[in-house]
Amino acid sequence: MSETKAFGHETYLSPFTWRYGSDEMRALWSEAGKRRLWRRIWVALAEAQAEAGLVTAAQVADLRAHMDDIDLERAHRIEAEIGHDLVAELRCYAEQCPIGGGIIHLGATSMDIEDNADALRLRRALEIIEAGVQALLLALAERIGATCEMPAMAYTHLQPAEPTTVGYRLCQYAQDLLLDLENLERAKALVRGKGFKGAVGTSASYRQLLAGTGMSPAEMEARAMAALGLEAWPVATQTYPRKVDWMVLTALAGLAQSLHRLALDVRILQAAPYGEWSEPFGRAQVGSSAMPFKRNPVTAEKIDSLARFVGALVPVAWENGALQALERTLDDSASRRAILPEAFLATDEIVRAATRIVRGLSVFEPAISRNLAAYGPFAAVETVLMELVKAGGDRQYWHERLREHSQRAWAAIQAGRPNPLIAELAADEELTRLVPAAQIQELLDVRRYLGDAVERCQQLVRELRKRVEARGRGDGRQGPEA
Amino acid sequence: MSETKAFGHETYLSPFTWRYGSDEMRALWSEAGKRRLWRRIWVALAEAQAEAGLVTAAQVADLRAHMDDIDLERAHRIEAEIGHDLVAELRCYAEQCPIGGGIIHLGATSMDIEDNADALRLRRALEIIEAGVQALLLALAERIGATCEMPAMAYTHLQPAEPTTVGYRLCQYAQDLLLDLENLERAKALVRGKGFKGAVGTSASYRQLLAGTGMSPAEMEARAMAALGLEAWPVATQTYPRKVDWMVLTALAGLAQSLHRLALDVRILQAAPYGEWSEPFGRAQVGSSAMPFKRNPVTAEKIDSLARFVGALVPVAWENGALQALERTLDDSASRRAILPEAFLATDEIVRAATRIVRGLSVFEPAISRNLAAYGPFAAVETVLMELVKAGGDRQYWHERLREHSQRAWAAIQAGRPNPLIAELAADEELTRLVPAAQIQELLDVRRYLGDAVERCQQLVRELRKRVEARGRGDGRQGPEA
Amino acid sequence: MSETKAFGHETYLSPFTWRYGSDEMRALWSEAGKRRLWRRIWVALAEAQAEAGLVTAAQVADLRAHMDDIDLERAHRIEAEIGHDLVAELRCYAEQCPIGGGIIHLGATSMDIEDNADALRLRRALEIIEAGVQALLLALAERIGATCEMPAMAYTHLQPAEPTTVGYRLCQYAQDLLLDLENLERAKALVRGKGFKGAVGTSASYRQLLAGTGMSPAEMEARAMAALGLEAWPVATQTYPRKVDWMVLTALAGLAQSLHRLALDVRILQAAPYGEWSEPFGRAQVGSSAMPFKRNPVTAEKIDSLARFVGALVPVAWENGALQALERTLDDSASRRAILPEAFLATDEIVRAATRIVRGLSVFEPAISRNLAAYGPFAAVETVLMELVKAGGDRQYWHERLREHSQRAWAAIQAGRPNPLIAELAADEELTRLVPAAQIQELLDVRRYLGDAVERCQQLVRELRKRVEARGRGDGRQGPEA
Amino acid sequence: MSETKAFGHETYLSPFTWRYGSDEMRALWSEAGKRRLWRRIWVALAEAQAEAGLVTAAQVADLRAHMDDIDLERAHRIEAEIGHDLVAELRCYAEQCPIGGGIIHLGATSMDIEDNADALRLRRALEIIEAGVQALLLALAERIGATCEMPAMAYTHLQPAEPTTVGYRLCQYAQDLLLDLENLERAKALVRGKGFKGAVGTSASYRQLLAGTGMSPAEMEARAMAALGLEAWPVATQTYPRKVDWMVLTALAGLAQSLHRLALDVRILQAAPYGEWSEPFGRAQVGSSAMPFKRNPVTAEKIDSLARFVGALVPVAWENGALQALERTLDDSASRRAILPEAFLATDEIVRAATRIVRGLSVFEPAISRNLAAYGPFAAVETVLMELVKAGGDRQYWHERLREHSQRAWAAIQAGRPNPLIAELAADEELTRLVPAAQIQELLDVRRYLGDAVERCQQLVRELRKRVEARGRGDGRQGPEA
Repeated sequence: MSETKAFGHETYLSPFTWRYGSDEMRALWSEAGKRRLWRRIWVALAEAQAEAGLVTAAQVADLRAHMDDIDLERAHRIEAEIGHDLVAELRCYAEQCPIGGGIIHLGATSMDIEDNADALRLRRALEIIEAGVQALLLALAERIGATCEMPAMAYTHLQPAEPTTVGYRLCQYAQDLLLDLENLERAKALVRGKGFKGAVGTSASYRQLLAGTGMSPAEMEARAMAALGLEAWPVATQTYPRKVDWMVLTALAGLAQSLHRLALDVRILQAAPYGEWSEPFGRAQVGSSAMPFKRNPVTAEKIDSLARFVGALVPVAWENGALQALERTLDDSASRRAILPEAFLATDEIVRAATRIVRGLSVFEPAISRNLAAYGPFAAVETVLMELVKAGGDRQYWHERLREHSQRAWAAIQAGRPNPLIAELAADEELTRLVPAAQIQELLDVRRYLGDAVERCQQLVRELRKRVEARGRGDGRQGPEA
Repeated sequence: MSETKAFGHETYLSPFTWRYGSDEMRALWSEAGKRRLWRRIWVALAEAQAEAGLVTAAQVADLRAHMDDIDLERAHRIEAEIGHDLVAELRCYAEQCPIGGGIIHLGATSMDIEDNADALRLRRALEIIEAGVQALLLALAERIGATCEMPAMAYTHLQPAEPTTVGYRLCQYAQDLLLDLENLERAKALVRGKGFKGAVGTSASYRQLLAGTGMSPAEMEARAMAALGLEAWPVATQTYPRKVDWMVLTALAGLAQSLHRLALDVRILQAAPYGEWSEPFGRAQVGSSAMPFKRNPVTAEKIDSLARFVGALVPVAWENGALQALERTLDDSASRRAILPEAFLATDEIVRAATRIVRGLSVFEPAISRNLAAYGPFAAVETVLMELVKAGGDRQYWHERLREHSQRAWAAIQAGRPNPLIAELAADEELTRLVPAAQIQELLDVRRYLGDAVERCQQLVRELRKRVEARGRGDGRQGPEA
Repeated sequence: MSETKAFGHETYLSPFTWRYGSDEMRALWSEAGKRRLWRRIWVALAEAQAEAGLVTAAQVADLRAHMDDIDLERAHRIEAEIGHDLVAELRCYAEQCPIGGGIIHLGATSMDIEDNADALRLRRALEIIEAGVQALLLALAERIGATCEMPAMAYTHLQPAEPTTVGYRLCQYAQDLLLDLENLERAKALVRGKGFKGAVGTSASYRQLLAGTGMSPAEMEARAMAALGLEAWPVATQTYPRKVDWMVLTALAGLAQSLHRLALDVRILQAAPYGEWSEPFGRAQVGSSAMPFKRNPVTAEKIDSLARFVGALVPVAWENGALQALERTLDDSASRRAILPEAFLATDEIVRAATRIVRGLSVFEPAISRNLAAYGPFAAVETVLMELVKAGGDRQYWHERLREHSQRAWAAIQAGRPNPLIAELAADEELTRLVPAAQIQELLDVRRYLGDAVERCQQLVRELRKRVEARGRGDGRQGPEA
Repeated sequence: MSETKAFGHETYLSPFTWRYGSDEMRALWSEAGKRRLWRRIWVALAEAQAEAGLVTAAQVADLRAHMDDIDLERAHRIEAEIGHDLVAELRCYAEQCPIGGGIIHLGATSMDIEDNADALRLRRALEIIEAGVQALLLALAERIGATCEMPAMAYTHLQPAEPTTVGYRLCQYAQDLLLDLENLERAKALVRGKGFKGAVGTSASYRQLLAGTGMSPAEMEARAMAALGLEAWPVATQTYPRKVDWMVLTALAGLAQSLHRLALDVRILQAAPYGEWSEPFGRAQVGSSAMPFKRNPVTAEKIDSLARFVGALVPVAWENGALQALERTLDDSASRRAILPEAFLATDEIVRAATRIVRGLSVFEPAISRNLAAYGPFAAVETVLMELVKAGGDRQYWHERLREHSQRAWAAIQAGRPNPLIAELAADEELTRLVPAAQIQELLDVRRYLGDAVERCQQLVRELRKRVEARGRGDGRQGPEA
């Protein structure tokens, strides 16, 4: 166990301490912050016990007065002796409270304090992430609105397929993220405290303490939890169900999955051979001297990298739940110290990064047009064939002719030349006798092939705004200043 | 690609083909079953298109007449040539339909058929699992009710801690499983189809087809989906969002987690040194000749084994969602053929196995009493000390005396003798001068240390019944005949 | 438990039963094949015991005569009664052997038979995979040799970077696969049997049986294992160390990782905007009618899909090893029935698929040249600058001028035109006064920028051939007929 | 990006910064330590280039003089502007070197520096872990030697099975750990550097620089790498193969798996109902006041917790290798900053913890004897039956009689009484007429049932000592002072 002093770059500092994540999220997962929560919970317990007449108002007032006087140096010295962090903090707190010190933790087991504190931290951390996702969804809504009619090639198997619109592609991410937002909300709703139920969840110690006071353990628990603004699970072992950690991390992993997909698409479309999109670049952020315009998708790559990290932590939480034997084993403890904060800090980082990307996404219309011009016409050849047949042409004959035209056009593209297909079709006199050149042009117009992408975009934007606003009336309004 | 014939034990047969899972679940994931769904979807599409006037009633009737005439031998022969299973099935179907064959799949892309079929299969599979969980919860409710007052040692760190009740321990699993049931329901609600949106999700091909009919692609989609009883996603790429697969598998993994925990507890408590519980054993299922009464928890071990398998499949679904690039890549396809059915079949197996265990769980009261007698008294020593002090004894002195008594008692247990603590305390004349022997007996009575476990059991049983019954009015009523 | 009959497409059939993997690998993991191994091991045990005088030559001969007479129907009927597959097979075998039936399995525990059989299966399965990797490496060596001098753009961050050669890119996969081959060999060397050590690994039952025969349990084990051609672990619990399963699956996952990378690169380079490579296509395998030349990388996508599946199975094996409590728990059993065969069958499939891709890989020189022409010159601008300065030019001035030239060239590419950079530099009279146009041409020649890629290719090809041939003298010579 | 200052407990500090892992391992993964390595590599490169005549001895001397003058405050200020950590360090270093500053990094790409530094860190980290495993193996060897003859119940399915010896159980862990040691050594042997191969691995920039010097890029690389004491991969992309990270983490995960198993067994055997083992407890480490002798296996639980964390990081490294597209993508970067140090720090922690447990493991002979007395006799009943039959008894009759005796004995144990079996058999006059009571006693002597466990222990101890000593002549001699 190290001292309370600060840690610098001569020792290991996690990237989540100094490189990734917001200060707000970091503070939430700090040791000092945790201990302030512990003290807040001890006070809430004492207050409820005061109502039962077990402790005095003066004792409670004393505790309340020292609620924020964290002294980690002292607490760590005690822990070095006794090997138990919560008991060390308890003694440190008691030393500071001459009047109330003796009644701290009355009837409680360590997890009555720690698990409720963790629930409070998880809930607050989820709120931070939720606000981030809301901001991201609003940014997406804006970009979808602005690009819903802009045609672009769609790609399946990474191959050009048929046209779509830029906005419609963005809709896919938004629809995924709406699911994530619901997952986060559901996880938050399930973050309940263990309550005050003692060593094996039966409230036996509280029942003994409260005997004769007229207050039941359940009433005492309800009062203390109300003061904390936290619901308690109806039943518990020594801890709250570890399944909940898994559900929280699963919600984060789902979000990470969506962001991974979004960032992967950015990376592909930013690849020069596609060249359609680019994540935003800082003015100072210089590329190579030879290719200052060439840009590496480093933010999107970071998102994918951290998203995979978030995803990988989930199995630890699954096992923590699956292997909790009988009324609790401690094999969840050490890993939780790492996976809970790091999953949140990594997610925090990538939500903000994705929001920056969406807000500042460069959409290169020349490159989009180039790709549409190169690949779009092929998608329309079948329509030309249908018109030729309608106009009396022989299907077999024209299928073969069009195949030859297409083949030549494709070879031209492969060799780096523009797609000659439209021009060659318009110049095929036999063909234009059946279908006039002007009609060919029209048939090859990409806007004919957008289906109802635009309408679906507009509908989703309305839906997004409605759903985020419904939530925004809560605490998520402002969003992170990404 | 193999022939259509049957496969025997001279080749590889998955354990999920013949060893684990129910016949109902297996039929759902059969190749023939899938193809019947494909045909049902083709018919639904044709019916909607008939309403738009694109196809005739006779054509639809022809399709409908051959909807169940799966001919896998023929379809596989075609697939061997062209390398595409859905197109092969389409041609096979078309061959069977002289009138309607030509209009099957009009405007559709393969995934308009396959993805809707998969959504129907996932939803049905979830229903089967849900019904199983409901049956399991009812079994738990019954056992909780019957054992809510039966005291038993609770164990933390696998060590005896304080008393609890058998029913209260069972409550933990039930509370976890209620969360799983909600997860399953939510997953089921999210299982929507891709709808009919064509190659890149824009409905472009349908818009062209429907031009002039007065029916929009969205209307056509709505009619066809209504016929299938399935909602469609507002937006889609070539497929429905692969995040959904992940959410479905996550719900299964959560259930597997709960069952893993339950089964692990059974394995521990069935261990002879604990000896408190046992999974049920068949009459024919003979143990060793020397120890016919000794029983291995093979069902619980199977549950844990398969639960881990289910958990391990989730990352594949996560990656399938995270790596779906642009309008779709096919790198989800091969793994989905394995992970979707196997996750369901493994879960199906362990839900039924867990239900059998809960229904037939042997609870050995003599062993429970033995353990309470051995370990329970220690948990009460502190109460004795309090009474001694109340009666005027010196705290320091009596603390040391009790420590010595406890130490001797523990050594006796370790050496295989009964816990002598109560007897020795009652025989300690100095002690009984302060606290009479009868009172000591009473103080050491385990029932004093059950807190509100019984009330919480009763409350949860009511809650369980209410919630399962609320659902049971749907399709889950009967439950699996486990 | 199902009947012994065959299973058709009306029930669930794993894709590994009929779609993925070779018949050889499937037969290895068949139930019948496993039971033939069991019988072979019973015979080996009986032979060793015959040498000790415990059983007669006639008994052994009787067993040997019926070694291959698997009767699954009968065995499954027995299993249905007694719930134990090995004991059922034992009884079935014994029924067939009037003379030797009574001495089968003398002193043995089930895992003495099953675990040795599994070791034999794992080893044979590893040999099949090894042979596949050797064939793949030879295919790579040939392609590297043929393309080691062919320049191509290298891409970092998916962006064009500097030139490399096609062969040098292929070297990366080959170097990775050499590591995998070593991993597979090491895994194979570690696949040892449990030997014959009885219920808890102490050989106690054999020691009792052999008392007075002059043969020790270790000698009996050594003789029986020698007959099986398998080494035994020095110590064992009821089973061989489950860590070994994990090491075997880890070796497969490493191979899957390499193939995932290879296939991902194929998918990217086959994307039309890159257009440099393509996996081979069957003549019958028709693309779309409009773009018959357009090809989806379906084989590479399948490789990536199954590679992720293989990777996902490893944690199950890790847990099976990590959670094997004391002298064995059965929670490894059910999952091993799925993960061992499926990991091998999936790997088998993707090794063969990758070999087909490498052998038949289309390398499109026009597209490679197009990309080199488009992006290669930028990589050389710095060299031009150096020459300008050498020739007396002002660094700052020329840096800015070149930047402007580059910027215009990039915009041209983005808009779909060829890279005008070389032409424009050659036409810049101020520039050509310092560095003649011919020299510019030469400086921009891609071959100046290949470093020692060619030499490194040649060296690796020699190394590959040497190492595969060293191995090929064993059983891997022929390789799979992919 | 935060400032260079230190970080305290008001922000997030990873548990690996202050709670888990050794200072040595932490220093290795510090930012400052990494940068010292970078500078050492820059100097090695400059030295090799000096031999080629590209830079002067004075320049090299200047660099060498400032090799350890890390100024993170300055470097971070530069990074804040330009967004690239290595280039910022380079500029910071150059500012400190008036003579040599201009020639740092000549011809190099960032990964020529970073990847070689990472290889050096990985190798050193592996050495630390290896030394820890050697110390653990020696501790195991000593305990095996001391307990190889001590009989104890063996448990399968967590149920008492047959006797074994304490030492033989310890052998299982040792045999597993020997495999891990080999894995670590193999991983260490594979940790090679990228070498100096430039942006896409072709050494093109070096070839240009070295033109006319008579030194080839391969020679320059060989000299610089020799100075670093590190081998280089024959071929590389921009980075060394990311498969290597995965192999390193896999070796750690294998070790974590073995330690998980060991710690799980300690947790079970420390459970009071078994009561056979206990991890060591500090004198100050007080248990509960009531049960001071009762001890929770908190160290073993920590090992299991962190072992699962280590295992979970492996898939991230697998994906980093599987998804590295073409000549490199950066999606490995952010996650590597977390997974590499944390996997090593967690492993470091648990190896030391396991060594402490093995060295200080309490083996409670009274409890072991109690369990042997309770469960051992059942294992011997079959032998008694054989003797009865040999003595002329009727098999069927005595089988039933013995079954009844056993059944009563088992019921007694379940009810908390000692196993009466031996006494009852000895008191069964009908039985002792066939087999005298003294012989019964002897037949039930546990030492008859240990097989060759003792010999196998002794053999393994010799093997362990031989293999660790063979290695110990290297750097692993002293081991960690755990």
